Amino acid sequence: MTEEIGTFELTPPEEITARVNKLQKKMDDKGVDLALIIQNVDLFYLTGTIQKGYLFVPLKEEPIFFVQRHYERAATESPLRCIRMKGIKALPSLLHEYGLGGKRVGLELDVIPVSLFYKIRDLFRGWEILNISEEIKEIRSVKSDFEIQQVKRSGEIIDQVFSEVSNHLREGMSEMELDGVLISIGRAKGHQGFLRMRGFNQEMMNIYVLSGESACTISFGDTPLCGSGVTHAIAQGSSTKRIKRNEPIIIDYGGGYNGYVTDETRVFVIGRLKDHLARAYQVAQTIIEDLESSARAGELATRIYERAKEIVAKEGLSQYFMGHGEGQVAFVGHGIGLEINEWPIIGRGFRKPLQPGMVFAFEPKFVFPGEGAVGIELDYIVREEGMERVTHFPKDIISL
Amino acid sequence: MTEEIGTFELTPPEEITARVNKLQKKMDDKGVDLALIIQNVDLFYLTGTIQKGYLFVPLKEEPIFFVQRHYERAATESPLRCIRMKGIKALPSLLHEYGLGGKRVGLELDVIPVSLFYKIRDLFRGWEILNISEEIKEIRSVKSDFEIQQVKRSGEIIDQVFSEVSNHLREGMSEMELDGVLISIGRAKGHQGFLRMRGFNQEMMNIYVLSGESACTISFGDTPLCGSGVTHAIAQGSSTKRIKRNEPIIIDYGGGYNGYVTDETRVFVIGRLKDHLARAYQVAQTIIEDLESSARAGELATRIYERAKEIVAKEGLSQYFMGHGEGQVAFVGHGIGLEINEWPIIGRGFRKPLQPGMVFAFEPKFVFPGEGAVGIELDYIVREEGMERVTHFPKDIISL
Repeated sequence: MTEEIGTFELTPPEEITARVNKLQKKMDDKGVDLALIIQNVDLFYLTGTIQKGYLFVPLKEEPIFFVQRHYERAATESPLRCIRMKGIKALPSLLHEYGLGGKRVGLELDVIPVSLFYKIRDLFRGWEILNISEEIKEIRSVKSDFEIQQVKRSGEIIDQVFSEVSNHLREGMSEMELDGVLISIGRAKGHQGFLRMRGFNQEMMNIYVLSGESACTISFGDTPLCGSGVTHAIAQGSSTKRIKRNEPIIIDYGGGYNGYVTDETRVFVIGRLKDHLARAYQVAQTIIEDLESSARAGELATRIYERAKEIVAKEGLSQYFMGHGEGQVAFVGHGIGLEINEWPIIGRGFRKPLQPGMVFAFEPKFVFPGEGAVGIELDYIVREEGMERVTHFPKDIISL
Repeated sequence: MTEEIGTFELTPPEEITARVNKLQKKMDDKGVDLALIIQNVDLFYLTGTIQKGYLFVPLKEEPIFFVQRHYERAATESPLRCIRMKGIKALPSLLHEYGLGGKRVGLELDVIPVSLFYKIRDLFRGWEILNISEEIKEIRSVKSDFEIQQVKRSGEIIDQVFSEVSNHLREGMSEMELDGVLISIGRAKGHQGFLRMRGFNQEMMNIYVLSGESACTISFGDTPLCGSGVTHAIAQGSSTKRIKRNEPIIIDYGGGYNGYVTDETRVFVIGRLKDHLARAYQVAQTIIEDLESSARAGELATRIYERAKEIVAKEGLSQYFMGHGEGQVAFVGHGIGLEINEWPIIGRGFRKPLQPGMVFAFEPKFVFPGEGAVGIELDYIVREEGMERVTHFPKDIISL
């Protein structure tokens, strides 16, 4: 971190060109003449700026970014052609002026709300509208060296924060107190402040400090651990529960650096864990070791999940794996990047092969009702030769 | 705050009944037979739980909440009839089974994404689909006593945090360091962890610590101050800039308690501000005093904005008011509640009258390019007899 404002690395121009080319290739495969990108994260990915506007990507020509706010900032940050625009009503004449034509337009229909869609549809009267969400997710799932560098820096911040937990964790403090301290440490080390998650009604906290039975609450989110939160209005995250001796304290901290997310979990204990919890932690380690020794580019993501389930079944822990009862989820990992719920999903039925450059969080966890949760979450980069870990691998529960 | 988990007050059943009745009245006015509510905050408002599901509100009969996840939690928190359901595909048979019929269905089209809408549309073949977003916003804009109580508690937390700023603010510390410390204090006092904002691509931080020229950056958001943020990928919030003597340090902190948001801003200085900045702060105070002495229930929200602009014009400060240059925004206040961008908007063209029970943040601010920003933000409850302030009114810039 430096003292100056905005010194984080901008996306290199050649990187933007490569991303646009990948999208154009997908457009060609699907028969799309023109893509209109509006969602802020997709915009950031394709333009290099999070400023507000409408990005048009024609099949063959250069993209044009019509910027609503703030033009100067967008034009400084993005290597693409930026054109100042007022509001959405100006678009038809701009399309005409810049010769953006065709018969089939691609939109991010997984995220664009209906009211906005109605306005856009009016601009494209006579066009066929296609959904290009899956194509964008697929492109974004394979990371460049530049992106992997940002992920690694995000991982370093979280690794440093975890190394400081034992200086602050004390019996009798509340989960929320520890939560606040760790957030402030992360922020001082350059954490970007919040994490992005794609989709309607998706919400998350940066950090979950869950002690003992707090980790067993089930909530709306599709996650193995969510916590009760401080209020049922949020219904996830750390609570006012005080941390006790001999219970598992599981901390899930999402890093964020220059837009890129990591997701890591560690277990701490003041005193000593009961044997069956310590044993489950070892099984989580075995699952991690299996991933590191056997997973390969080309393997179907769902196969890794199935192998994890086989290990768990052999140990007789199936009913506690990735949640308990109705809280159980059907995955053990998820892609990370600019958002925390990217592809690949290392879960049931996700039948796409791992590709070099994919980055995912891998989180074998066990929830024991009334007692708490144990597990590990680490981030991995898929390489030709195997899995590269982003941070170090904590072999043991960290006991104080 | 107590030690127990989940001890925040649940929404009282009679409160839920009153809210549902208000919606049914609006449905009747619009000719809607059945409303389907999906957005999480609208769900929380109408059911009392943030758990995931589909709420059906018929015009005359009792609502039914079909819960996807987590049923037990929803059934505990909501006084409404809760029915367990698997996925969206189960809805047609459930609608049939529970006799939910009609010809015109109301949906939250401002937030429902197109892909999800297509699935819902298939369920309502032969029905007319109407947008009930505005009706919901209108109902939610008038708060009950219970809601106002939550807002006040949110305000208390932030007030306490502001009273501790001078214990932590030091020359040479970075904005982000102070940001982190204040977040951790808020969290320890019961801050819910994040704030909700309605709409596509809407993002915000809980806190903005902006010193000197940091407050002058323009970004994508429709706010007078956004900051540069630690990275252009976020493009708002506190940065790594170090805090200097004699520059305005403006801190905007969004409170969150039991779902309810407040939004408050204070100015600090280490040393002394230049006269023209101190003068602008006094003008912000004058605008606040005008609101407190003259605003009334029944007055059009836009009139308050116009009066503020008149005061500013008389002082010759129009070019700095609510941003500078392209960063200028056309409002001076915004409704708050479960989300931070509710109605009323105290801004240009918002021609709805203030009603008793409305709650809004009021934020006269001035941005001086290259120098920084000064201003105040306070929250108000509209009463029959005038405006009730949520927290105390800081008459002076707080100098260290």
